[in-house]
Amino acid sequence: MALDLSHRRNDIAAIAIDPERLLGDMRRLAEFGKVGSGVHRRALSAIDVEARQWLLGRMREAGLEASIDGIGNVVGRTPHARRIVIGSHTDTVPNGGWLDGAMGVIYALEIARAFMAGGGEGEIGLEIVSFCDEEGSFTALLGSQAYVGELDAVSARALANEHGQTLDQAVTDAGLTDAPLARFDPAVHAAFLEAHIEQGPVLEAKGLQIGVVSAIVGVRGWKIRFEGRADHAGTTPMAMRADAGAALCDFAVRFAAFCKANGSAHTVWNGGAITLTPGAHNVVPALAEYILSFRDPSATLLDTLADAVTRISTEVAAEHGVTAHADAIFALAPARMDADLVGILDEAARGHGVKPLPMPSGAGHDAMVMARHMPTGMLFVPSINGRSHDLSEDTDDDDIVLGARVLADAVTVLRQRL
Amino acid sequence: MALDLSHRRNDIAAIAIDPERLLGDMRRLAEFGKVGSGVHRRALSAIDVEARQWLLGRMREAGLEASIDGIGNVVGRTPHARRIVIGSHTDTVPNGGWLDGAMGVIYALEIARAFMAGGGEGEIGLEIVSFCDEEGSFTALLGSQAYVGELDAVSARALANEHGQTLDQAVTDAGLTDAPLARFDPAVHAAFLEAHIEQGPVLEAKGLQIGVVSAIVGVRGWKIRFEGRADHAGTTPMAMRADAGAALCDFAVRFAAFCKANGSAHTVWNGGAITLTPGAHNVVPALAEYILSFRDPSATLLDTLADAVTRISTEVAAEHGVTAHADAIFALAPARMDADLVGILDEAARGHGVKPLPMPSGAGHDAMVMARHMPTGMLFVPSINGRSHDLSEDTDDDDIVLGARVLADAVTVLRQRL
Repeated sequence: MALDLSHRRNDIAAIAIDPERLLGDMRRLAEFGKVGSGVHRRALSAIDVEARQWLLGRMREAGLEASIDGIGNVVGRTPHARRIVIGSHTDTVPNGGWLDGAMGVIYALEIARAFMAGGGEGEIGLEIVSFCDEEGSFTALLGSQAYVGELDAVSARALANEHGQTLDQAVTDAGLTDAPLARFDPAVHAAFLEAHIEQGPVLEAKGLQIGVVSAIVGVRGWKIRFEGRADHAGTTPMAMRADAGAALCDFAVRFAAFCKANGSAHTVWNGGAITLTPGAHNVVPALAEYILSFRDPSATLLDTLADAVTRISTEVAAEHGVTAHADAIFALAPARMDADLVGILDEAARGHGVKPLPMPSGAGHDAMVMARHMPTGMLFVPSINGRSHDLSEDTDDDDIVLGARVLADAVTVLRQRL
Repeated sequence: MALDLSHRRNDIAAIAIDPERLLGDMRRLAEFGKVGSGVHRRALSAIDVEARQWLLGRMREAGLEASIDGIGNVVGRTPHARRIVIGSHTDTVPNGGWLDGAMGVIYALEIARAFMAGGGEGEIGLEIVSFCDEEGSFTALLGSQAYVGELDAVSARALANEHGQTLDQAVTDAGLTDAPLARFDPAVHAAFLEAHIEQGPVLEAKGLQIGVVSAIVGVRGWKIRFEGRADHAGTTPMAMRADAGAALCDFAVRFAAFCKANGSAHTVWNGGAITLTPGAHNVVPALAEYILSFRDPSATLLDTLADAVTRISTEVAAEHGVTAHADAIFALAPARMDADLVGILDEAARGHGVKPLPMPSGAGHDAMVMARHMPTGMLFVPSINGRSHDLSEDTDDDDIVLGARVLADAVTVLRQRL
C-alpha cells in the first residue's frame, strides 16, 4: 500500500482557497441543527438529511459529479480517472460542536471548488466525501466502513438508532432506497486525506497550529466484575469480609501504576464507570463493576496492558477473597498513517512558516477505516480549551483557514508526485 | 450511674425458663409478617400492630400489668416499685430475619412469665419491653429514644416512613392516639438488659455460644466528593486530566491502609457506594462520590479516623489536580456497657459451663440509647453463617435456649444483689 511518488509534474498549479467562502460555508452548515453555539445533527435525522442535500447542492455548484449514496454518504467527484479522496463526516454526537468532522468536509469542498475554478487540469483529480454516521447513531464509522466494503450494507439495515428507528427506515425516509453505494476502488482512489479538530488540549498547550497525525490509537474496552459477599458492615470483622468494592479500588490503583510504569508517552487509560451493589453504607459491596478503557498507537503495548488487566484483577481478587471476571467488551485496532503523507503534510505546514506537531490521534476517525485500504494522512487544528463533542467546541478562524491552506498544499504536492 | 450491688438476698430463687414455651412463642411471633423463612414486619404496619396486640395479650396472660404506649412500645410490668428492664424490639427491616430483636423480646417475656409463675416475690421486679421501630421505618431507635425522653414525641409525629405515611397517621391507625408514653424513671428502673443475635460471624467462627457485649461501637458516616473535569478519555494526555474517579480509588486504598495501620482490633470500615459522573468509558469522570462509614468502640479513635478522612482526601485531591469535599453525614457515639453487668453476664454464662466471648457490638441496638441513662448489659447468641437482616437469618435452638437461661440467671443475680 505504499505510494508511488516518482512523478515530478512541475506544471501542476497550487490550489488557492478562499477563506471567506470556506468560513461562510462552515457557518452555513452549522445552521442545520443549531443548538446555541453548537449543533445537534444525528446521522440521517431529518435535519441531517437536509444538511446532506445542501452539501450535495454545493458540490454540484462547484462543478463536481455528486450524489448521496445508498447509506447516506455524500460524494462529489472531479472527472479524473484517478483521484485523491478528501473528507470527513457531517453528523454529530447529541448536542455536539459545530466543527468536529464538518470542518474537514468543508475543507474538502473548498479545495475541490478552488481546484475546479482553477481549471481542474492534470491527471490526478479529487473525490470529496461526507461519510455518514461516524458518530455511531446506528453504528460508529458506518459510512466509511460501507465505502471500503467492510460493512455488509444489507444486514446493517437492521441496526437501530437511539430512537429505535432502523437504518433501513432512515434510508427509506431519506429517499435513498435505490441509491447505489459509493465504493472504494484501488485503481481509482490513490490516497485519503482527512482534516479534523484535535478534540484535545495538546496543540493549544504547546502553542502550535497544526498537528500531523502519526497514528490513530487503538482502544480496548474492558468490564471487570468482582464478586464478593454482602456482609453487615458493622458486625463482620475485616478479615472475614469479601469486599468487592475494596478489590475494585485496589485494582484501579494498581492498573494505573502498571500503565505509568509500562506504557508509552501516548498511553492513556480511563476508569469511566463504577457500580457497587447493593450500594449502601452499611453493607459490604457484594458486587463491583468497573468499566475501563485504554489506548495506545501500538497493538503490542495494548496486548501487554490487556494481559495486565487479567493478571492484576486475578491477583487483587485473591488478596481480597473475591472472584474476578475480566471481559474484553470492545477493541479497535490502531491505524498507522502513511509515512509519505505524514512527510507531505509536515512539509506543507512548514511551507506556511509553522512548526507541525507529530502526534497520535486519541480519538477514532474515518481515517482509521480508510487506512486499512489505502495510504491515509490526517491533519489536526487546535481545539480551544481542548473542548469537543460539546456545544462549547471551537477553533480560531485563523487556525481553521491555516489548516485548509496546509491541506490544499499537501493535495497539490500529491497531485505533482503521484 | 454505677450499680449498687451491695445486697446479698440469698432467698431469691432462680428463674426456671421453659424452653418449649420460649421457642413456641418465638415461632408464633414469626408468623406475623412471615416471608419464607423470614419476616417482613415494619414498625406500626398493620401486621406489626397485630403482633404488638398478640404480645400485649401474652404479657397479660403472664400476669403483668401491660399496655402499648403512645408511640407503639409494648411494656409489661410486675407490681414491684423497683424493676430491671429487659427487652429489645419486634419490628424488622424489609424482608428481615425471624430472630433479630424478636428473640430478645421473647426472652424477656419468658423470664417475666417464669418469674411470675414462681410467685414473683422479692423487692426487685421486672419490666419487659418491645421498643417500637428500632429499625428506622420512621427513625431508628424511635421507641427507646422516646422511652428515655431523648425524642420529642410531638415533633416526631411528623416523621414519615418509606410509604410516605407519617408517624402521626400510623399511631392513629393503631388506635394509640390517647395512650400515654412509657417513660424511664431512675427511681424505678435499676438497669437494662438486652439479648440479641450477634448478626455477625464471630461467635460461630470461634465455636462459642455466648457473647457478652463490652461496648456498642460508634459509627461515623462520610460523603467524600471529588470534583475534576470531564475530558475526552482518548485525546487528553494523562498529565492534563483532573480525574475524580482515579482520586476516589486512590483515597479508598490509602484510607484502608491508614485504618489497618492505626485502627484497633475492632475497627471496621466500609466504602459502600461509589458514583462516577458522567459514567461513560470514554469520558474522564468529572465527579466522584464515595459513601464511607467506619466503626470502633473508642470515640478517640473515631476522631483520629475522621481526621484521616479529611487529610487523605485533601492530599489525594492535590495529587490528582481535583478538589475534595469531605462531609460528615452521620455520627453515633459509642456506648460502653456497664462493667458490673458484663461481669454478671459473664459469670452466668460460665455457670452453664460455656466460655463467654467479650466482644463489641458492631451494630446499633436500643441498648445504645438505654446505656446513656441507666447501667446496661447486652448478651449475644451466634448467627448461623453470620447472616442477619435477611430471610436466611437463623440460630440453633440450643443456642437460643442457652441464651435465655444465661439471661435469666443474670437477672436472678441482679435481683439478689441490687
